[in-house]
Amino acid sequence: MKLYDLDLSGNCYKIRLFLSLIGQECEIVPVDFLGGAHRQPPLSAMNPFLEIPILVDGELILRDSQAILVYLARKYGGEGWLPTEPGALAQVMEWLMAAENEIARGPNDARLHVKFGVPLDHELALVRTARILDLLEARLARRDWLALGRPTIADIACFPYVALGHEGHAPVGARAHVTDWINRIKALPNFIGMPGL
Amino acid sequence: MKLYDLDLSGNCYKIRLFLSLIGQECEIVPVDFLGGAHRQPPLSAMNPFLEIPILVDGELILRDSQAILVYLARKYGGEGWLPTEPGALAQVMEWLMAAENEIARGPNDARLHVKFGVPLDHELALVRTARILDLLEARLARRDWLALGRPTIADIACFPYVALGHEGHAPVGARAHVTDWINRIKALPNFIGMPGL
Repeated sequence: MKLYDLDLSGNCYKIRLFLSLIGQECEIVPVDFLGGAHRQPPLSAMNPFLEIPILVDGELILRDSQAILVYLARKYGGEGWLPTEPGALAQVMEWLMAAENEIARGPNDARLHVKFGVPLDHELALVRTARILDLLEARLARRDWLALGRPTIADIACFPYVALGHEGHAPVGARAHVTDWINRIKALPNFIGMPGL
Repeated sequence: MKLYDLDLSGNCYKIRLFLSLIGQECEIVPVDFLGGAHRQPPLSAMNPFLEIPILVDGELILRDSQAILVYLARKYGGEGWLPTEPGALAQVMEWLMAAENEIARGPNDARLHVKFGVPLDHELALVRTARILDLLEARLARRDWLALGRPTIADIACFPYVALGHEGHAPVGARAHVTDWINRIKALPNFIGMPGL
């Protein structure tokens, strides 16, 4: 199994983190992202969306960090990280979708602008960040983990860009329950960090 | 089972469409969206993201159209629409994520601006629309369905806002393979339409 990876990408990091949490070996292939390697063959053929991470497992080539988490959890991670029971599965899905949508367009965009100079509406990204942080704060006031009564890939999917929020100038630390949740994830056995955490 | 619904919402429509395709009964509860009912109790407590659709099945309350599709497919739809095998499951997920991200920020945003006057960057939405339409066109040049060799919830999730693209002034009809795919979905047994299709 190979992961095409960038150390500064929160989307790549969530895959490395989950692999570590489940003790799964994987070859990490660094991608020259600033040099545009993801926009050229062979990577552009492996993922026409021109993004990383990309996971290769035998004949299978997968894009999108949330889809890759689902694959790894179902194949190597077991029921704990991604249940098959319809209601529990859907509750995990709700937060994978928040990672793909509200968190991507909030704290991820804010960080892209501040840290990497990507031209986008930083004010709008901060408004969206405040909104999803408030939603997370309210959710985590009543529970330890986002989707179920235990850590699932929902937490792993949402964690990186929330925990990296300060790099986009988002006041994540002002939310006590979000901060406690970040610390609970950092205390998981075999947790690994990334630059900025 | 109850679906809190708006007839003009593509995200609500994809749930109604899938319910019809699998022959599942569900009470449709129209929401006074223009009157802001989704921002007030009881709906605001059922979905703090203040959006519809919302699905209620017994004790379970679910938000997000993609998560709801996953729930309905796993509980009532069978393996055909959403496989459990890890690789096939992840391939469906890739396109659920495209529905949640690239299609939402492309043709959905473009339509929100043109049809409902939502203040957003319509030019940017059209650029994103062209990009995801090109990706879909390339994908569908070599296959009939987005994720697997048969229709899955990946197709149902991506279909509405692509097929409604003209309402946001997106030139969907210029893509022959996308157009053929739209027509294949429209030919599925028990297909139902919505205003604008």
